[in-house]
Amino acid sequence: MTRIAILGATGYTALGLIKILLRHPEAEIVAVTSRQEGQPHIAMIHPALTGRVDLRLEDLSPAEVAARADCVFSCLPHGASAAVIPALLDAGRRVVDFSADYRLNDAEVYALWYGQKHADPARLGKVVYGLPELFRKDIPPAQLVANPGCYPTSVILALTPLLKVSMIDPKTIIVDSKSGVSGAGRTLKLTTHYPECNESISAYNVGRHRHQPEIDQILSMAAGSPVEVVFAPHLVPMDRGILSTTYSQPTAAVEEKTVLQTIRDFYADEPFVRVVDHFPGTKDSMGTNFCDITARVVRGRVLTFSCLDNLIKGASGAAVQNFNLMYGYPETTAL
Amino acid sequence: MTRIAILGATGYTALGLIKILLRHPEAEIVAVTSRQEGQPHIAMIHPALTGRVDLRLEDLSPAEVAARADCVFSCLPHGASAAVIPALLDAGRRVVDFSADYRLNDAEVYALWYGQKHADPARLGKVVYGLPELFRKDIPPAQLVANPGCYPTSVILALTPLLKVSMIDPKTIIVDSKSGVSGAGRTLKLTTHYPECNESISAYNVGRHRHQPEIDQILSMAAGSPVEVVFAPHLVPMDRGILSTTYSQPTAAVEEKTVLQTIRDFYADEPFVRVVDHFPGTKDSMGTNFCDITARVVRGRVLTFSCLDNLIKGASGAAVQNFNLMYGYPETTAL
Amino acid sequence: MTRIAILGATGYTALGLIKILLRHPEAEIVAVTSRQEGQPHIAMIHPALTGRVDLRLEDLSPAEVAARADCVFSCLPHGASAAVIPALLDAGRRVVDFSADYRLNDAEVYALWYGQKHADPARLGKVVYGLPELFRKDIPPAQLVANPGCYPTSVILALTPLLKVSMIDPKTIIVDSKSGVSGAGRTLKLTTHYPECNESISAYNVGRHRHQPEIDQILSMAAGSPVEVVFAPHLVPMDRGILSTTYSQPTAAVEEKTVLQTIRDFYADEPFVRVVDHFPGTKDSMGTNFCDITARVVRGRVLTFSCLDNLIKGASGAAVQNFNLMYGYPETTAL
Amino acid sequence: MTRIAILGATGYTALGLIKILLRHPEAEIVAVTSRQEGQPHIAMIHPALTGRVDLRLEDLSPAEVAARADCVFSCLPHGASAAVIPALLDAGRRVVDFSADYRLNDAEVYALWYGQKHADPARLGKVVYGLPELFRKDIPPAQLVANPGCYPTSVILALTPLLKVSMIDPKTIIVDSKSGVSGAGRTLKLTTHYPECNESISAYNVGRHRHQPEIDQILSMAAGSPVEVVFAPHLVPMDRGILSTTYSQPTAAVEEKTVLQTIRDFYADEPFVRVVDHFPGTKDSMGTNFCDITARVVRGRVLTFSCLDNLIKGASGAAVQNFNLMYGYPETTAL
Repeated sequence: MTRIAILGATGYTALGLIKILLRHPEAEIVAVTSRQEGQPHIAMIHPALTGRVDLRLEDLSPAEVAARADCVFSCLPHGASAAVIPALLDAGRRVVDFSADYRLNDAEVYALWYGQKHADPARLGKVVYGLPELFRKDIPPAQLVANPGCYPTSVILALTPLLKVSMIDPKTIIVDSKSGVSGAGRTLKLTTHYPECNESISAYNVGRHRHQPEIDQILSMAAGSPVEVVFAPHLVPMDRGILSTTYSQPTAAVEEKTVLQTIRDFYADEPFVRVVDHFPGTKDSMGTNFCDITARVVRGRVLTFSCLDNLIKGASGAAVQNFNLMYGYPETTAL
Repeated sequence: MTRIAILGATGYTALGLIKILLRHPEAEIVAVTSRQEGQPHIAMIHPALTGRVDLRLEDLSPAEVAARADCVFSCLPHGASAAVIPALLDAGRRVVDFSADYRLNDAEVYALWYGQKHADPARLGKVVYGLPELFRKDIPPAQLVANPGCYPTSVILALTPLLKVSMIDPKTIIVDSKSGVSGAGRTLKLTTHYPECNESISAYNVGRHRHQPEIDQILSMAAGSPVEVVFAPHLVPMDRGILSTTYSQPTAAVEEKTVLQTIRDFYADEPFVRVVDHFPGTKDSMGTNFCDITARVVRGRVLTFSCLDNLIKGASGAAVQNFNLMYGYPETTAL
Repeated sequence: MTRIAILGATGYTALGLIKILLRHPEAEIVAVTSRQEGQPHIAMIHPALTGRVDLRLEDLSPAEVAARADCVFSCLPHGASAAVIPALLDAGRRVVDFSADYRLNDAEVYALWYGQKHADPARLGKVVYGLPELFRKDIPPAQLVANPGCYPTSVILALTPLLKVSMIDPKTIIVDSKSGVSGAGRTLKLTTHYPECNESISAYNVGRHRHQPEIDQILSMAAGSPVEVVFAPHLVPMDRGILSTTYSQPTAAVEEKTVLQTIRDFYADEPFVRVVDHFPGTKDSMGTNFCDITARVVRGRVLTFSCLDNLIKGASGAAVQNFNLMYGYPETTAL
Repeated sequence: MTRIAILGATGYTALGLIKILLRHPEAEIVAVTSRQEGQPHIAMIHPALTGRVDLRLEDLSPAEVAARADCVFSCLPHGASAAVIPALLDAGRRVVDFSADYRLNDAEVYALWYGQKHADPARLGKVVYGLPELFRKDIPPAQLVANPGCYPTSVILALTPLLKVSMIDPKTIIVDSKSGVSGAGRTLKLTTHYPECNESISAYNVGRHRHQPEIDQILSMAAGSPVEVVFAPHLVPMDRGILSTTYSQPTAAVEEKTVLQTIRDFYADEPFVRVVDHFPGTKDSMGTNFCDITARVVRGRVLTFSCLDNLIKGASGAAVQNFNLMYGYPETTAL
């Protein structure tokens, strides 16, 4: 049994995480934190948790967290996460960080895209990127795991098998992603006010989204050469789910079945990647830790289509998958 | 006053058309046809029309239609439309055809994409493509107008200004389109059954959608050289609206403001194209005949984003715009 | 031509109003007000208005408004509306008030339900309730019209014909209403944050909703005796539309066809009430000024079902209907 | 380990059931049946099951089913279910029936509401109604359990505690229920075609819905006297979830806190009923086996509000709860 603390427990990723951990036979949630005044019961904030967990939100210091928990899931926003994680690590605790703070290897790239100096730059470049399908062997010994972003997971899983064998030209990648609204978080914004975004689709932050350098970095590792994707995210009127459609130039003429088989072989032993022949809908993987992928060749270009639940495989599910690997529990436990 | 018949009046485009024509001071709907048995009142089929129009659905021959109406809007499916339009034209009637039957210039291309021989091949290549923004001068004298497809309108309006000045390479165009469910029509299908498509987005018919050759044909005219787009349509959980995102390689390095200004200049005098700085949402043009367009340059590639209401600017609104031009009414009447 | 000012133009009712007035041949919008800083163009706040109207939001005093406009539509919140309307009336302007400030006849009832002292109590009881179907003859001479609430309109139109002939017992009325999310306005709230209210229905403010005394007051006039309804509003995951289901005990056994005929006769000459046999869906009247009503008798109880678009017949459409009556334009103009 | 067959496995309740059973450590699905031709893999019909279960749909006789399975879940439609269940029972198998065939005690009532003669009338009145909260002790020994309807579960759980203590008058009950679209099943219908029911709410089958006699029957048992509810179901644009709002006259003046406490006490030991103070939204119980209930007293009337997931507590979750009780597994296993 591992004692778990969750930092920043008022958002959707924390809610998703708690639901999964409640099914986990080896996890015991011992603390949930928030700056919310009055230490409200977690079910006051997340009514779905009524009767399922008896915890109050507390405003705890890193030392207090470290005193109670073995493993810490940080659902804090970027910046806030890197401000408390070093103390937790120094106290010997293991951490899965949902924020972007430890995903990028370079503090300057971080500063450029996140608009602030990194609080713990010395650690960058040494933290495992918690995508088990690519970095499984590095996760069990890790003290700190950077949980991947939701968009990056969908794109990286689709393209890595093709980049690894140089099937596509890394200079030609276009990513058109579509996300449900929960991806924008629980903070109130006009763009996610129901009558604004319901029954409407629009692009946003094209070329400026913070997941772009994250995608670049991991795909560059796969390609063995610098990748710079064109990344265009879109907001879709649905709660959850991401569909990423990618377009690339192949390095040589290639058949559709070869593309599909390459991806299929790459993930042959993966429990949470399903390579399918049909076009997956986001609903197929909703509420699960699966990523569904297919591919097509159209007029000489290679297209991939990948779906996942941004709150599960794109956040809390991946975090628990990492947790399982870190603690030696079967990787699919509770997922 | 022009007497109007609507063929195939049970679908969504016909409903949209009737709503617009009810506001039109010079249009009188005199017949609505369907093979539906029992000549039901149109409001039995479209409850929204209760109390607004007093017409029964009739199963009329072309001769009967021609006897009553001056102008015929055909909302029949492809194949069925070309089977009756020649008789209407021979009887001297003017026709706006919502189907794809007269959009393509080449009967072989038609046969290839629509899986059937064309019923009236001799006329192909001589019918005006009813996109006023490109072919306005050809519409007033036309007896038959091929009303454009919904996806093609969104794509053609976005890219034509750039292709006309050779700003983008016609060999590099990728089109990622997103459509609301009404675009799939009113015929029952599992894919448009509410619990299947709600809260889900997926691609469909990628590389095989019948709007692809239509886009190719019109963009080739704009470019002056053959265009072959990669076209990936997606189904979005909303009633109406299309957002098309396109990605192209510029022929030479270009600034974002130049791209935007080129499009803005091209449509300076157009009543129904709005070139905007922000990313348009489909809701901005919902229920209107507008097409909203913006553009970006990201990592050297030119991106366009165009939105319209598939049932208005993508169908019935465009049809009434064509009707206004054909009959010399102010182009924006009732729109 | 009537010069119009709209106060509080950043919300959904103002947007709906502007869209209708743009179609109105006798209305010219000359001012739109808001406390928003920087006098942004109205299209910055409502992108749907891009290219359709050239107005900036201004923070104008009542005197400045009166200097420019003949008729003022106040879309200000309750409290704020009664604070400025007296000055407009004193300056001789005519006003349609969207807020609840002048709907109730009794300042104490107002204070009880709205939690604040009324700013202009002397006028209460003398202002016409702008529901043309009941008070049409009082509207043309009125200087100030209190535009009805959205829920009340749906309920009052359904029940008045039955109360007028004492067909139902006024002590037994239960109202179960369902509203789309735009009814909650454009102010950001967690309850209307997309991932909270999408794919969920819940009751709210049951027995405490401010529309309850408004329904009571007008139904009491119809009944000729005090009516106290049980009013249970529910929030439905859709943009717009209200469906009110009512349950009453008949005063004597009654047949369904009699109930329906009574309502049908009552509205025989009304342009915007449709009495139908089927169960109306809110979509049937979406975007229109119609209220659709049907009735049933189930196990001896009388049930009514009434639908309208909360932003049109429940707000802006009704306001324009009142405006038309006030200025002698045909009642259905622009509607 | 119990070997399980699922009859009629192409619908939404079967999909929900399979997902739950995949988590159940003591359940092994050994057969899934359908008349579908070609014995497609179940994942061809339910893409969400890709990679999770390796079963083909087979058209099996009762004898073949009995030969393979210990326990049979019948997701067949009414009529079809009673046609095969007797053979399964005769073969010694235990059955949980999702259809309405064994819920009513009276073959004449069945014939009246379901429009067909019952195939197995002798058994009616002897089958346990599988609502553990009311009939828990009868379930373990049962060979056949009639799984309750979704609407009835929401209504019966809310009202039984009040009827048992005669707090409300059984002659005065009004039930206004709201359901997501999955409740209408997977068969294609115009009313559940996305562009028809999205963004719209409407009543349907009021006074004629087949769940009305089922509610009457069980509530009559609770009340000890005949109950006849007025039942008005409504279709809400969301995938899943039911909210039932009920209105009753109390037998004597009663305080809100007493009503709430009565319900709370009744369910004090129930694992799947949550009595809450706030108005529950259907999203709170989505994907869970919970039923959330609250109550209010408004102007002397007693109101209850109860929410559940129609596919879980209203179908598959309840079925597994029954299965757990029948086989002596912990009642909450896999739920």
